[in-house]
Amino acid sequence: MDKKPLFKNTDSLSELGEFGLIDRIAHLFGRSGNADEIGIGDDCAVLPGGDDRSLLITTDMLIEDRHFRRDWISADDLGYKSLAVNMSDISAMGGKPLYAFLSIGLPDDLPLDWIEQFFRGTHALANIHGVKIMGGDTTKSPGPMVINYTLLGEIKSENILRRSAAEPGDQIAVLGNLGESGAGLKLLLEKEPPFSSDEQKLIKAHNRPHLFVDEAQFLAEFGGVHAMIDLSDGLQSDGGHIAKASNASLVVESENITITKPLQNVCQKHSWSHLELALASGEDYGLLFTISREKAEALKHNFKAKFGYSYNIIGEVEPGSAELKLLNKGKLFDIGKMGFDHFRADNQTKK
Amino acid sequence: MDKKPLFKNTDSLSELGEFGLIDRIAHLFGRSGNADEIGIGDDCAVLPGGDDRSLLITTDMLIEDRHFRRDWISADDLGYKSLAVNMSDISAMGGKPLYAFLSIGLPDDLPLDWIEQFFRGTHALANIHGVKIMGGDTTKSPGPMVINYTLLGEIKSENILRRSAAEPGDQIAVLGNLGESGAGLKLLLEKEPPFSSDEQKLIKAHNRPHLFVDEAQFLAEFGGVHAMIDLSDGLQSDGGHIAKASNASLVVESENITITKPLQNVCQKHSWSHLELALASGEDYGLLFTISREKAEALKHNFKAKFGYSYNIIGEVEPGSAELKLLNKGKLFDIGKMGFDHFRADNQTKK
Repeated sequence: MDKKPLFKNTDSLSELGEFGLIDRIAHLFGRSGNADEIGIGDDCAVLPGGDDRSLLITTDMLIEDRHFRRDWISADDLGYKSLAVNMSDISAMGGKPLYAFLSIGLPDDLPLDWIEQFFRGTHALANIHGVKIMGGDTTKSPGPMVINYTLLGEIKSENILRRSAAEPGDQIAVLGNLGESGAGLKLLLEKEPPFSSDEQKLIKAHNRPHLFVDEAQFLAEFGGVHAMIDLSDGLQSDGGHIAKASNASLVVESENITITKPLQNVCQKHSWSHLELALASGEDYGLLFTISREKAEALKHNFKAKFGYSYNIIGEVEPGSAELKLLNKGKLFDIGKMGFDHFRADNQTKK
Repeated sequence: MDKKPLFKNTDSLSELGEFGLIDRIAHLFGRSGNADEIGIGDDCAVLPGGDDRSLLITTDMLIEDRHFRRDWISADDLGYKSLAVNMSDISAMGGKPLYAFLSIGLPDDLPLDWIEQFFRGTHALANIHGVKIMGGDTTKSPGPMVINYTLLGEIKSENILRRSAAEPGDQIAVLGNLGESGAGLKLLLEKEPPFSSDEQKLIKAHNRPHLFVDEAQFLAEFGGVHAMIDLSDGLQSDGGHIAKASNASLVVESENITITKPLQNVCQKHSWSHLELALASGEDYGLLFTISREKAEALKHNFKAKFGYSYNIIGEVEPGSAELKLLNKGKLFDIGKMGFDHFRADNQTKK
């Protein structure tokens, strides 16, 4: 084991941030040298699954008053969302989610009816996609409720979609309504009920994000998709992950980003920037992927034929700097570093 | 999905207890019909692993002030123990632990030195047994620290040791020093430092439990062991799990249970019942297993030859009632229901 201290004297957890901490820990544990076993750094870990298959594994911890508030989300929706965010990570690599394990820490005074609705919400989502809840751990929490799902999925090894595979010339595509979830959270944080019907739609997008489970598997199997990631931290941050891992530049034209009608209306009402929300707010759980030019037409045609709608092309991969570049009508546009980071002092679930 | 309410009007989480809650949840999710996929109910879930192998998966949530207190356990020991309890579950079925995933919720004011020692403790244990930390989730906790490990192991499918396989005539055997961890916890709960050298040994048994990772794999591979479980809840409770799952009676002679010298001394000093601790206190993380009469001699001989010490034979499996029966010098001895249950109002980590 490396004996050098992991942290400098000046480091604090808040300064370091979530990604900084993960970076130091990854340094201690070492990144795996075996190409079949990919550890810390992608949406899922990848393990050999027998024959030509790989296992995909992801885990996610939600803590009450940090990631959710019980007065902002119903038990049913929280049961849905806590499994959904993990399914989104399996989708991010093109896999099929299969087996889930749930650890849950429950405050002693939690109503049993709440617990039942939580489990019914999670079970309903699992059922739709054939995911089996295989076990877990149930314990009492002396503090906030804690929910930790670990989800296993499967994929044919040659179809795995990694963050690192974007190539210059690729189209950049998006599935999902960017910014809706972030606007929903902003409403919960800053505004009081009653909420308009448009506002309720955005809050629902935050509490019960739409998944692209079948679409992700189709994209991985059809061929032509190079890199993929799910939009958990926001387009700017997640696009930056692809750019960094692929050592390429993701050039996005903001004019190409579809802003939904509810988001337009609500942003107009509250004088919010829909572009800022679409770029920098997280938890949409859509998919961001890059498509090889040669297969772009065939993929577009077949995706439309299968699902009856199309993904949204928002830019192009270029050689050069490992970052996401945002254009507004062709001119460079700097929105600063706004992605969500769990240890940064801003951007927390206020109480 | 079953639409019947899971809970009766009179149920409360405290009355129901952890096992009661798991029972109701298992009812909602259904137990898997596929013999290759065993869900809720054993130490690990079992999934097909390709060829003649199976995957074993376990997960465990530790919450500060519920399962540990930072003034009672060092960061290094906690890093060790939080992985160790999961390794013990893989050992309980005879498997080899391979890949770990860590979700951790950290209070913002946690010293970075503490975090470093935690990760060094967990990394050192992983290294000894060739376990790779493959990923996880790092987040900020607004309340207590939360640690959730998910661990994957592997075993040849025909060697899996389940709780349900005990047969009348089997010897009942134990690996590990029963009661030491429980006495260590009792010291932390009820007594003040300074602690004697014997007392420190018991506290160490609680904070840094000895594992039987190689022994467990040997027992599974050699043959002759029928049922196995790890001693996380205590002999009475865990033995009861084997008895219930096997529909047999586990008859244990308390005179045969080895009480270590430090436990004897400390119990004498504080007028504690070492038998009660050995039977009813948990977190020893030893192994409880049953051995076929035909292979008992060969197993005993070969185990001794390989490891240089012997396991402890404490009783015999008999036909009949699905429970653990305790004898004292051949006479039935009732110690009541003392096993640890996370939702029962007694037996919590007091603050």
